[in-house]
Formats: sequence, C-alpha cells, structure tokens
Amino acid sequence: MKLEIFPVTGIGDVSPGDDLAALIAAAAPWLRDGDVLVVTSKIVSKAEGQLVDVPAEGPERAAARDEVLAAESARKVATRGQTRIVQTHHGFVMASAGIDASNVDRTRLVLLPKDPDASARALRAALRERHGLDVAVVVSDTMGRPWRNGLTDVALGAAGIAPVRDHRGETDPYGNELHITQMAVIDELAAASELVKGKTDQVPVAVVRGYLSRPGDDGPGAVTLVREAASDMFSLGTAEARAAGLHEAALLPLRPPPAGEPADPAAVERAIAAVAGAIAPGTLFTHIPDEGVRATPPQSSDAAALVRFGTDLHRLRAALAAEGAGTVPVLPDLPA
Amino acid sequence: MKLEIFPVTGIGDVSPGDDLAALIAAAAPWLRDGDVLVVTSKIVSKAEGQLVDVPAEGPERAAARDEVLAAESARKVATRGQTRIVQTHHGFVMASAGIDASNVDRTRLVLLPKDPDASARALRAALRERHGLDVAVVVSDTMGRPWRNGLTDVALGAAGIAPVRDHRGETDPYGNELHITQMAVIDELAAASELVKGKTDQVPVAVVRGYLSRPGDDGPGAVTLVREAASDMFSLGTAEARAAGLHEAALLPLRPPPAGEPADPAAVERAIAAVAGAIAPGTLFTHIPDEGVRATPPQSSDAAALVRFGTDLHRLRAALAAEGAGTVPVLPDLPA
Repeated sequence: MKLEIFPVTGIGDVSPGDDLAALIAAAAPWLRDGDVLVVTSKIVSKAEGQLVDVPAEGPERAAARDEVLAAESARKVATRGQTRIVQTHHGFVMASAGIDASNVDRTRLVLLPKDPDASARALRAALRERHGLDVAVVVSDTMGRPWRNGLTDVALGAAGIAPVRDHRGETDPYGNELHITQMAVIDELAAASELVKGKTDQVPVAVVRGYLSRPGDDGPGAVTLVREAASDMFSLGTAEARAAGLHEAALLPLRPPPAGEPADPAAVERAIAAVAGAIAPGTLFTHIPDEGVRATPPQSSDAAALVRFGTDLHRLRAALAAEGAGTVPVLPDLPA
Repeated sequence: MKLEIFPVTGIGDVSPGDDLAALIAAAAPWLRDGDVLVVTSKIVSKAEGQLVDVPAEGPERAAARDEVLAAESARKVATRGQTRIVQTHHGFVMASAGIDASNVDRTRLVLLPKDPDASARALRAALRERHGLDVAVVVSDTMGRPWRNGLTDVALGAAGIAPVRDHRGETDPYGNELHITQMAVIDELAAASELVKGKTDQVPVAVVRGYLSRPGDDGPGAVTLVREAASDMFSLGTAEARAAGLHEAALLPLRPPPAGEPADPAAVERAIAAVAGAIAPGTLFTHIPDEGVRATPPQSSDAAALVRFGTDLHRLRAALAAEGAGTVPVLPDLPA
C-alpha cells in the first residue's frame, strides 16, 4: 500500500451557510472514489455558523471569552497560568475547549462543530449525492497532549472509515498474541494531513489517497476515540488531583463506612509507618486486624496533648485513605 | 506540497549486529535524497542488541518482566490493574517502559534503543557514507495517550529533520498572531508512516517523500519533544496524585512555614467554608488577615471534645492546603 497526500488549495474564505461540498469539489476536481478527505474543523464550524461575536479587545474581550469557554466546557480538567484545559460537551479534552481566535475576524470566535461526526456524515452525503463522489471524511483539529511538547492534528469527526484498526486476536510470526491491539487510524490520517496543510496558508483540506480501497458505511465515527473520564487514568491535572486529595482529607469522616472488602494489612502498616515521624512522641497506633487501628495517646492528658492527639488521629485517617485503606476505623483510647 | 508514503517490504528478521543501513538500502533501492525514513524502533533495538533473556512462561517470566521494567523506569507515573505507565530514563512516558514481547521469540524481550536520537544519527550517517544517500531518519514507536482510545505512532528519535514546525510570530490573513505555535511534525510523520506499516506483516520501515526539499543538519532530535515532568500538568495519574494529596495531608506541619507571598483571602474563606459541615457544632474558624485563622473550640471541654477539636484543626489545615493557602497558620484557642 502506497499513500499519497494532496493539499486542496483555493478554497478561500468560508462563511456561514456556504456549501462546503461544492467548495471542495470545485477546488479539487481531481477527487476520486475512495479518497479520504481530511477537513480542518474550522471551516466546518464557519460553514455551520459556529461563531460567536466578542469585543475586539480589552477586558470585555477577556470576559466574553471566559463566558464562551464556560458554556463550551462540561468540566475543568487542569489549569496552569493562562492555560485552561477542559473537557467539552463532546468529550474532547482540549485547551480552551477548542475555541479559536485565529483565521477569523477579531470580533469573532470560532467554536468546534456541534457534532463533528454528524458534520462528517453530512459532508460525505453531500459529496455523494450532489457530486457523485464516494469518499470518506475526517474532521480534524489541532490538540496538545500530556508528556510531549508540540501539537498534532487528531480526528474530531469521521464518516465512511473505521476509526480504529483492530489487531485483537492476531498473532505475530513468532506466535505471540498481539498486545497493541487498536490503532487510532483516523488520528494518524489527521496527523498525516496536517503535514501538507500549515496554519496560515489557507489549506484547510487535504486528501489521502491509497488508504481505503473503498469507503464503507459511515461507521461509528470519531466519538469512538473519546475515552470517558471514569476510565481515564489522567482525567484530572496532577495539581488538581492532589488538591482533591487534600480536600478529601479535610472531609474524611470520623468513622469510615464499613469496609466493602478487608483492607490489605500491609497497607495499614504502611499508613502507620508513614505518620510515625509526624505524630506526638508517645502516641501509639496498633493495627488490630478485623477491628481497626487502636490509637493510644501519650501519658500526659492536658488540653494541648488531647488536641494534638485529635490532630494525629486525623493524620492517620488521611494516611489510611492514601493507602487505599480508608475503610479501616481509627479507634481512639480516650482518657476517662 | 504533495506527500507520498511508501512501505519498505522484504527486510525480514533483524538480529543483533545486523547492518540496518545495508538491509534498508537493499530492500529499497528506490530511495532518494530528501526522503524521510521512518524506522520502527523495534528493528533498531534488535540490531543494537537491546534484548534481554526471560523465561518463556510461568511466574518466573512475570518476575523477570517486573525486574526489567524496574530497570527501564526512572519513575512510576500511573498504575491501574495490569497497566503500568512509567517514565523511562529517556523521559518517554509509556506503558511498560516500551518493553515489547511481540515480534520476538518468547524467551526474549525487546527494550527501547538506549539513545534513539543517536540511533537515528548513526543510521543516517551510514546511509550517507556507505550508500551515498542524503535522507532524514525518524525512529518511531507506538504509544498510548490520555483522553483518547487507540494508539498512534510517535517519534522516539530523529536526525536530519527539524522536530517541530514553529509558527511563532506569524500572523494569519486576519492579522491575528498565531497561538498554536509548535507542530510536532516528526510525530505526525511517524503517525503517517504507521498507516502503511501494520503490526504483524513485517513492514518495519516506511519512506515519506515530498516533505523535505533537502535534509539539513542532524538537528536537536526527538528529545526536543520530551516534556519534563516538572512542566507537565499530567505528570502523575489522577489516582496517584489524589493519594499524594492525602499523604501530604497526613504530614502537614502544625505550624506551616512562613508565607512566601500573602495568601488569597478568598482562598482562606473557601477553606473555612469547605470544612463547615464536617467540624463539631460550635467550633469557630475566623480569618484574621495577616495573622491566620483563629480557631475557637465549642464551650464543652471534656476530653472527647478536645480530641475532636484537634481533628477539626487538621481538617482546616488540609482544606487550606487544598486551596493553595497552606502557609496560613491555624491558631487554636486552647482552654487554659
């Protein structure tokens, strides 16, 4: 399989109500059945009128941007300095919810398409019905990512192409079953297409030829690639998750709910060891399996020592929670 | 600019000591100056002898794998079930440190190349010196990523190509300065190449033609794309960072170090409000700017109430830390 990737030039400015299929078909009369069209989400948004008016500058502009960001966000993921990473209502995790102020008049912001898979399906249908072309469509945008500098293009929407190439069940020539099972091919197609696009030179569409022998059904779309926060190991920024842990410690109940399953004794011992250097000398924590941790204050029982004992009990509760043993009760020996 | 991407077939098995440049030049006699060779890291590792012997099965195999993983890891990033995401000594954040058991005999594991940029430079130099070819080289591997299902190929090493296309300072046709400044083009080249490779069919090299007019210096390499943990907003898994917050709460000092800069009064108020529902009725927290939070226990001062007061003081310390106001002292009014 050999791939060719062509830029589509000459599309020019796109305005609300424009017929994208007609613009693309006119700019690329050389399109063929089986081509994959990778369309920058911005022109899809513009054609669909996904624009909001904002002041051109000043604090009013910043306030208006904040309001748009809040409306486009389903939840906050991470904030540092001016960077705000959120999860959009579509489920995409993006800086500024993908709201874009580039390649548009200063009095407008471009939002993401409302439903990029639907946009891809509609563009595909229009090309098929009005221009006789059987192509696949990918709607792409630029995203940052953890752990690596620089940005890449990924797929927000797709139609007529399987989003994933699945190797499950295959074995390699050595007889090993493959562990790397699912390749996000529509993201790779979006990345490949970005290489011929550039950011300012008005090449909002690229065509990948040779990847598909023939497009299939519209398929499940790029939504397949959105991972739910609950199954994501990085659903929150590190600082935000650490703060959530501190907040949780502030609210730990005096008596935890009864254990669902027995706590790992080693985890309880680790929690006791973790706080050993922070508690008052003479305070004793003893792990009594199936019962909890018995806490004995030092001999002295003046007011300050009792207050300190209460603090140290809460240290232990936090340490147990940190070890995943937060259901183990802390049983204080209170002076009579 | 039009790109073409060709698979290089017929390279066959690679063994330690093999001359990769010779194997590639023989398999792709059609290579030209200016081509970008994207080489799967696995064959680089095999040629360089980056293999370790492990038992073919049983608990011994699992133990040996764990040992290799520990040796390849600089730090743990996140663990869930069987998945272990670590940062390697190179700085890459990858599941299982990139150690691979596929496409290799069951008694061996393939490690990442020791220095993939050096591998790319060496392969480039060999092709230039012994085969008269002036190409760029990217060493690629498959990586997962947060937030999105499916895997993509990225660049671990590079020579003869700028890793990043930088748009800083450019303006779009509307006069807006571009905010999206740095595109990770070597990652996009790796992703594009994966589309013609596949996982089991022995296509470990792809060639991208048309991207470079001519290769330049070796350049800074793919290490440019490695983001340091300190500047990464997702340096730890969410569960790990939350546990770190709980652990930090367990060890908060009774008297915090003096504030570097004054705490935001709103943050202090938020902390007081956050614990309001969890503290004993009658306990009072009052924010005294520039001094701290004065804590007054309820009237009753029996032992249990004092212990509870100590617990509630620590709740407030944790809540202040969660709000980034952890340098504000908590000043208890102790009964005489």
